[in-house]
Amino acid sequence: MRRGIYLENTPLEDAIKKWTEKIVSEGIKPLEGEQTLAEDSLGRVTSCAVIAKLSSPFYHSAAMDGYAVKFSDTFGASESSPKKLKLGLQTISIDTGDPLPEGFDAVIMVEDVNVLRGHLKSGEENGTEGEMADEYIEIIGPAAPWQHIRVIGEDIVATELILPENHRIRPVDIGAIISGGYTEIGVRRKPVVVIIPTGSEIVEPGTELKKGDILEYNSRILASLVREWGGEPLRMKAVPDNPDKIKEAILDACGKGDLVVVNAGSSVGSEDFTAGVLSVLGEVLLHGVNIKPGKPVILGWVKGKPLLGIPGYPVSTYVTFTLFARALIYRFQGLEPPEPDFLKAKLSRQVASSLGQEEFVRVKVGKVGDNLIATPVSRGAGVLMSLVRADGFVRIPAMSEGLATGKEVIVEMLRENREIENTIVCIGSHDNALDLLANILKKRHPKYSLSSAHVGSLGGMMALKKGEAHIAGTHLLDEETGEYNIPFIRRFLSKRKILLMNLVHRRQGLIVLKGNPKNIRGFEDLVRNDVIFINRQGGAGTRLLTDKYLKELGISPNNVKGYGREEYTHMGVASAVLTGIADTGMGILASAKALNLDFIPLAKERYDLAIPAEYIEMESLSALFEIIKKDDEFRVEVQRLGGYDTSDMGKIIYES
Amino acid sequence: MRRGIYLENTPLEDAIKKWTEKIVSEGIKPLEGEQTLAEDSLGRVTSCAVIAKLSSPFYHSAAMDGYAVKFSDTFGASESSPKKLKLGLQTISIDTGDPLPEGFDAVIMVEDVNVLRGHLKSGEENGTEGEMADEYIEIIGPAAPWQHIRVIGEDIVATELILPENHRIRPVDIGAIISGGYTEIGVRRKPVVVIIPTGSEIVEPGTELKKGDILEYNSRILASLVREWGGEPLRMKAVPDNPDKIKEAILDACGKGDLVVVNAGSSVGSEDFTAGVLSVLGEVLLHGVNIKPGKPVILGWVKGKPLLGIPGYPVSTYVTFTLFARALIYRFQGLEPPEPDFLKAKLSRQVASSLGQEEFVRVKVGKVGDNLIATPVSRGAGVLMSLVRADGFVRIPAMSEGLATGKEVIVEMLRENREIENTIVCIGSHDNALDLLANILKKRHPKYSLSSAHVGSLGGMMALKKGEAHIAGTHLLDEETGEYNIPFIRRFLSKRKILLMNLVHRRQGLIVLKGNPKNIRGFEDLVRNDVIFINRQGGAGTRLLTDKYLKELGISPNNVKGYGREEYTHMGVASAVLTGIADTGMGILASAKALNLDFIPLAKERYDLAIPAEYIEMESLSALFEIIKKDDEFRVEVQRLGGYDTSDMGKIIYES
Repeated sequence: MRRGIYLENTPLEDAIKKWTEKIVSEGIKPLEGEQTLAEDSLGRVTSCAVIAKLSSPFYHSAAMDGYAVKFSDTFGASESSPKKLKLGLQTISIDTGDPLPEGFDAVIMVEDVNVLRGHLKSGEENGTEGEMADEYIEIIGPAAPWQHIRVIGEDIVATELILPENHRIRPVDIGAIISGGYTEIGVRRKPVVVIIPTGSEIVEPGTELKKGDILEYNSRILASLVREWGGEPLRMKAVPDNPDKIKEAILDACGKGDLVVVNAGSSVGSEDFTAGVLSVLGEVLLHGVNIKPGKPVILGWVKGKPLLGIPGYPVSTYVTFTLFARALIYRFQGLEPPEPDFLKAKLSRQVASSLGQEEFVRVKVGKVGDNLIATPVSRGAGVLMSLVRADGFVRIPAMSEGLATGKEVIVEMLRENREIENTIVCIGSHDNALDLLANILKKRHPKYSLSSAHVGSLGGMMALKKGEAHIAGTHLLDEETGEYNIPFIRRFLSKRKILLMNLVHRRQGLIVLKGNPKNIRGFEDLVRNDVIFINRQGGAGTRLLTDKYLKELGISPNNVKGYGREEYTHMGVASAVLTGIADTGMGILASAKALNLDFIPLAKERYDLAIPAEYIEMESLSALFEIIKKDDEFRVEVQRLGGYDTSDMGKIIYES
Repeated sequence: MRRGIYLENTPLEDAIKKWTEKIVSEGIKPLEGEQTLAEDSLGRVTSCAVIAKLSSPFYHSAAMDGYAVKFSDTFGASESSPKKLKLGLQTISIDTGDPLPEGFDAVIMVEDVNVLRGHLKSGEENGTEGEMADEYIEIIGPAAPWQHIRVIGEDIVATELILPENHRIRPVDIGAIISGGYTEIGVRRKPVVVIIPTGSEIVEPGTELKKGDILEYNSRILASLVREWGGEPLRMKAVPDNPDKIKEAILDACGKGDLVVVNAGSSVGSEDFTAGVLSVLGEVLLHGVNIKPGKPVILGWVKGKPLLGIPGYPVSTYVTFTLFARALIYRFQGLEPPEPDFLKAKLSRQVASSLGQEEFVRVKVGKVGDNLIATPVSRGAGVLMSLVRADGFVRIPAMSEGLATGKEVIVEMLRENREIENTIVCIGSHDNALDLLANILKKRHPKYSLSSAHVGSLGGMMALKKGEAHIAGTHLLDEETGEYNIPFIRRFLSKRKILLMNLVHRRQGLIVLKGNPKNIRGFEDLVRNDVIFINRQGGAGTRLLTDKYLKELGISPNNVKGYGREEYTHMGVASAVLTGIADTGMGILASAKALNLDFIPLAKERYDLAIPAEYIEMESLSALFEIIKKDDEFRVEVQRLGGYDTSDMGKIIYES
């Protein structure tokens, strides 16, 4: 294949229309039925109507504990002139559920009856202890015909409809099916989705990894999505980038499944063969959709089977598979796909987007006071964690160049709205202890989540000011006073009542490779020609600290190589050092230790949480504070990270 | 055991509090973890935090197809003075995902490069056809450091948190877990719920049934609920009503499960042994809750295990199990149970309720125009179909004697709100063809449902008037004019524009046992002493027809035995005749035929659908009309019911 073949840029809406029309015109219908045990049919879909074969109940029975009577025998009974009915003859003791004896047509409740005892039976006669035999009952009111009787068919009458066709079976339905006389019923065969991972670089999980290998996890995500949507995934062995092998795999898949998915190789690179193979074997309906991520989609048809070629970056894989496979998999089952929840939220920051592409932006959603806030997370198609962390998608239309801060957007939710309400939004400086805090909160209180966004200490203050966060992590040193955080709260949050709670004291310093091969001793070495620095973003407390040191040493940022390259977290800095992007960067000891790097300690600083007073009574925050103040496991884990002093953890430093 | 032991009447809230406190005080915690394959972990719950073991990606790689360069080599390149880089030395061709070769630190996209071809290699030299060898690339701009490179850890850096503890695993999580270096992870063991059905009358599905047998389906409902909530059900063989056997079963279950459920035998009848056995084996915390249905609940504790004794009527079983087991099963998994959807709706008719009991009323919910309407369905605890048909529950507080028509109520939904929006509400006269119509609508359009409530033709007219239905089935004969339906529309619906569409013409008559053993020839025989009649409810077209015949014959209702007993459907009448409750009743031929009964034809009548004009454009109704007008399968099925003339089916009879 040649480089330089161009992808189409079909609008998503047109692509979906084309796909749907093809599906209809090819006669893709709900799949045929198969018999399954009624008791195992949970979640399956009826392939034909379920009609009661039995009435339920199928005999008249007592609805109460009491006595069966003929209602005509009870006429005229009243408190002033009770009637006596002879047991065994005119009346029979009956328990709830017992069949009504032949000839009787009403039940009187045990509470409404006086039992008149007869003579003492002799115990010797029947080998038991002697006991009083009931002989008559006395009633003080007439019975209505058929009272306290569950009549035949009270629940359902034979021949009536229990469940229609195309009905997803719930627990109660299983009861009704069995009660209607079935042990087995017809349910739709589950659609089989054959998933073909391709790529010579793909290796199975558990393989010893070498550079260039890519772990094969996309097919596992796809298989799980298929399961979630009611289908049956069939994951094939990964196929190398070889047109003949791919051809063979597709032909094999067509014989095995109802839908074939080829993952990766859907673009126009030198090792992208899906479209080429497809055009020989069958039909390429469309190649390229105007979406981001996910543009290089192939919609095709081979040997009567629909085929999807989807790109390999995991977020693209997820987005395109959901767009083009989900409705089809439901259709095979005779179902309509459930609609996602939608939520209106305000963007916490602007999102630029390229004209002509419909973009799927992952966002975190937080509810702070009455504000619903959507914050975009990483937009890289390769950043699977952006999906793991996301609460939903915002779609930016193709004709838009982006959305401004504060814009109201519709979020297509990946989580339940209630989960959003139970999420504590923490925006501000990053610290490794926050990860631990998030985990221990979930462990102690599964209901609550802590969601952290890392925008630096100043960004956190601004988020509090705008009502976009419940708490902000901050370690801002005021150069003039030498005081942490408080001067900034006074400056930026003068209109809100704020509580400042200490989380930790921690060590900051320069992170270097194990053994410090470049022999970096401090900031003075950042001007060396052979030393590349990695910086933190503007507004980060660590950035301010960096600039303070440079200023003190009279070093111009222009003379520091790499000053312009920014990371958003301590771990990002440590990782850049570990992987050779830079030789050193400023960060906390915990990050260096996590990646087994060396560390040149420079400062001990105070890392606090700023919390508007109005939120401190919230149940979720109370639960969080409880952990910060008292939880021994949390303290021990934080200390194990390295470089932390937890002696003031949970202490209120300041109240405005 | 003796009769007459009383149940407690503990308020539900207190019962739940007591149960929860006991669960906490006994130290019931999320269950221990077990290892499972990451790819099989969908829906399981993490038993510890998942921390990345690998960075992802774990090597620098190209993010684009293009050429790897050293960014320092590209300084100064511009359109006016392009730079040439030697292939293989200064630059290397690279595809998306390829590892970045050692020493390179930027990628230039293939689109931004001019490839300068060298001399023609001789094909003979290497046995291939001769081809042009690339020798240089030309660039017209400098590269930024690390541009178009996916750096190590772009997705996640080793040691970072992928998932917290107590997190239910979704498809994307599985990808992230594998990408973080795991093939297996720790997930919570599924809680095992041992379900013990009891009752000597219980028989397994598939058994040849005899009077007094009860099909054992409750344990299948319970098992399916347990599965739906993430637990592992263990259904035991049914145990007869024998205290020793029940004791044995409970002890056995305590060794096998995390929660034991004994179904039925939880009351105080002569064959209810659960409470007695429990008080010997362990502890009865509570016996009897003030709810309806479901009062005879037992909360107990045996050998360190929670035990639930729940009543046997299926609706009671469902309600009590949900109230007392659901949260516990989630707790065992370290999860919070998802909250149901709630909806505000108006009651379409009043509901009386007994003071002192909190009642769980099943309702159907319909959306007609902007009105959300809740209509109570059958309240019998034995009527499982009331749960199958219900859209939700309305709780009537213990201190209320009932709720008035029009009262706004909160409905705890059993279905998605969207399903409600796609439901066509049909209120009015009952006809067997409506069941078929409901089924075929679901078959053709899985999205839509037809929900029928049978309140008689006049009730249907009133529902249209009040805006509570989309369509009303009606067969009202105006005695004066001999005309069907139209005079009633003029009279009752003068303010709405109504369309009248014919569904069928059908045969009405007297339904009698096969062979007509009582030799009933017509209405004149209803005065016979040995003939018991079964009537239809007031407002039913069939009731009006009945009264018309009686009037014509000069028969007073007082002289008709059974005139006071009413059924709501044709099938109800037929069933009453079949089961000996009555000797005859008025109904349609289809009902008689369904139950293999004989039929004395008396009238042919027109059964129409009345539809307010404003609804006819609705997509759901258009789909329905399409079926009524044109669907051959529907026509054939209706004719097969017997007694129907479909020649006018779909014809517009009248427009107001």
